[in-house]
Amino acid sequence: MGSPPPLSPFAPKSLPQAAPVEGVRLAVAEAGIRYKGRKDLMVAVLDPGTVVAGVLTQSKTRSAPVDWCAAQLRHGCARALVVNSGNANAFTGKRGQEAVEITAAAAAEAVGCAPEEVMLASTGVIGEPMDAGAFSHLLKGLATEAAPDALLPAAQAIMTTDTYPKLVSVSVDLDGVPVRIAGFAKGAGMIAPDMATMLSFIFTDAPIAHPVLQALVSELADQTFNCITVDGDTSTSDTVLVFATGKAAERGAAEIADAMDPRVPAFSAALKGVMHDLAMAIVKDGEGLSKFVEIEVTGAESDKAARTIAFSIANSPIMKAAIAGEDPNWGRVVMAVGKSGEAADRDRLSIWFGPHLVAKEGERAPEYVEQTVAQYMKNAEIKICVDVGIGGGHARVWTCDLTHAYISINADYRS
Amino acid sequence: MGSPPPLSPFAPKSLPQAAPVEGVRLAVAEAGIRYKGRKDLMVAVLDPGTVVAGVLTQSKTRSAPVDWCAAQLRHGCARALVVNSGNANAFTGKRGQEAVEITAAAAAEAVGCAPEEVMLASTGVIGEPMDAGAFSHLLKGLATEAAPDALLPAAQAIMTTDTYPKLVSVSVDLDGVPVRIAGFAKGAGMIAPDMATMLSFIFTDAPIAHPVLQALVSELADQTFNCITVDGDTSTSDTVLVFATGKAAERGAAEIADAMDPRVPAFSAALKGVMHDLAMAIVKDGEGLSKFVEIEVTGAESDKAARTIAFSIANSPIMKAAIAGEDPNWGRVVMAVGKSGEAADRDRLSIWFGPHLVAKEGERAPEYVEQTVAQYMKNAEIKICVDVGIGGGHARVWTCDLTHAYISINADYRS
Repeated sequence: MGSPPPLSPFAPKSLPQAAPVEGVRLAVAEAGIRYKGRKDLMVAVLDPGTVVAGVLTQSKTRSAPVDWCAAQLRHGCARALVVNSGNANAFTGKRGQEAVEITAAAAAEAVGCAPEEVMLASTGVIGEPMDAGAFSHLLKGLATEAAPDALLPAAQAIMTTDTYPKLVSVSVDLDGVPVRIAGFAKGAGMIAPDMATMLSFIFTDAPIAHPVLQALVSELADQTFNCITVDGDTSTSDTVLVFATGKAAERGAAEIADAMDPRVPAFSAALKGVMHDLAMAIVKDGEGLSKFVEIEVTGAESDKAARTIAFSIANSPIMKAAIAGEDPNWGRVVMAVGKSGEAADRDRLSIWFGPHLVAKEGERAPEYVEQTVAQYMKNAEIKICVDVGIGGGHARVWTCDLTHAYISINADYRS
Repeated sequence: MGSPPPLSPFAPKSLPQAAPVEGVRLAVAEAGIRYKGRKDLMVAVLDPGTVVAGVLTQSKTRSAPVDWCAAQLRHGCARALVVNSGNANAFTGKRGQEAVEITAAAAAEAVGCAPEEVMLASTGVIGEPMDAGAFSHLLKGLATEAAPDALLPAAQAIMTTDTYPKLVSVSVDLDGVPVRIAGFAKGAGMIAPDMATMLSFIFTDAPIAHPVLQALVSELADQTFNCITVDGDTSTSDTVLVFATGKAAERGAAEIADAMDPRVPAFSAALKGVMHDLAMAIVKDGEGLSKFVEIEVTGAESDKAARTIAFSIANSPIMKAAIAGEDPNWGRVVMAVGKSGEAADRDRLSIWFGPHLVAKEGERAPEYVEQTVAQYMKNAEIKICVDVGIGGGHARVWTCDLTHAYISINADYRS
């Protein structure tokens, strides 16, 4: 690795704090998998009775740990989570699969559970053979020393090109019983929405049945993580796992056993908040970004069409480079709408940059003043709105600009 | 405009030459549409009897001149071509359409033909109102001074961020009669394949019926211009027009009246050669490029699937940045295959960088030597081959890397 990338302009001024989640203990270690002088391995030990739900990358070349998690998500029971950074264990063939099995077995022994109750994730370089022996011997010690207040070190241990740890926690009231939800995530390149995106781990002490949790996670991932893009490149390793220890039941919160439970909306809103905030934290630490961009599309033929148009804008290199240059080049929005393949009518299209209407009825808006809009583009957070003008479809996605730093980071990621 | 971008490393050492095409006369002028101190307007005057065939952008927000050409391609007769650079006349509403009509009328009067026999194209900034009055008065003089040997100045007049003119010409023998084909094109950003790509104008004195020519152009564009990408961004203005003056008939070449004519294969091969060379010239002048990249995919489920996979690799920003950094990061090829959505089996995938097998059977190839492949990446021309291993589908596409210069060019294109 070259010198570390400069801190994201959106990095929080202080490190995030998160209160412990009952039933979850964490520990981290410096295993030297790729990075030197930093923690690159984390273990979460989960109390008996924990259920897990998740969404995984739709990539056809997904990693060995993703294959493993897919199998375990069927039964939905988890007692441990092991995550390493520096090596994605993707495209590593049979040996990669063996590394997964060795890790799961070692973690199971350390925690005292079945290997199938161990969830795994890896992030880093693709195609580099993974030597599980280099860190599996550390798991016993980690399981022993795991403590409830180690959420932040865990969030730090899974970072790759991230410039700050992403950790979010909230409390939600279930019939008078406070329940915690805390989660962390990592980005920061090869980020594009295809079901799950990147790595994110969320913990709650809510008592909730596995099928209910899985349905919630799938639905909410689509509204949060799947609405972000840094570069349009979908990772082989994308994993979102939500662990529910159920510990709040001991404090009087009855189990949420089905989706019709009246407490589901409140819990769902809280969980969505955590997932949304983590997704935003990933975009705001997008590789090399200088600006955070929200793109809202209305008036498309359908919600799906609106989303395709929004991502066509959000993933356009020429549009993203213009934003980096603070150029209100709305002609490139027109281009991206046009290339999306979705129904559009040039003469019904309207485009706003922030509060400024820049184009309508097939041409530049009469009230457009270049200087005013150029001034708006100097903001760190940019909003682009497009009304297609032909239907009721709506979508909102989040992205960042494309800068020199993105090129620098990705031109020498492995060197 | 900022300072001009540095010359492409693939720029030819000397200016291209092209012999005149009988029945075609050209002229250029400095109209001051956007650029200062350079030619930005070209006119081609075509002898009576010229037929025109073409392919146009599939963008839903296509420009006014593209709308105009679409209407005229139905009858396929052309007596003049007018092209300006600096303003795309795209998303310019009714006024853009009026500008097109004013230009066509002025050119028609200058040449002595119907406005419907004038083909038009514009390239440059999108959404900037076009004042046809600023240059339509020049057309009379240009038509008068037009000369057969002005192909190179014409190729130069249509450049925007291009760093060199793209001009190709060949001669093909039709039953002992030499026939010429000469064409020019411009790139260099907002280049992605969706039928036609960018502007390209090709002239031949071959006598060929309009339906035969149109069928050939559509088929060949798909094999040439539609197989290139610079940044995955499809322009609003993409136009390929092929004009056939038929003048070789006077030298004894009978008209090619139908697609079964035995001379079609030779003519088609020659025309394809010109279109291919122009397409390659566009990629080799891709905005900010340092490397030219060929991507070949074999063993996919179908040719269409192979093409989708090839473009998934060719348009991946993270892959393109790695190539710029001379990093043999084949893991990103795995990622791009996986995200393409096409059928793939990780364990049957093979990847080569140049002659070097880097991955097979789901993991890094045993013979892979990082240093050797890193050395290969220092070449200016890189070839990446992927065998998907599940079918007979094949595709080949061409692209370039993603560099700091691309960002610089597009961050301040309008400033």
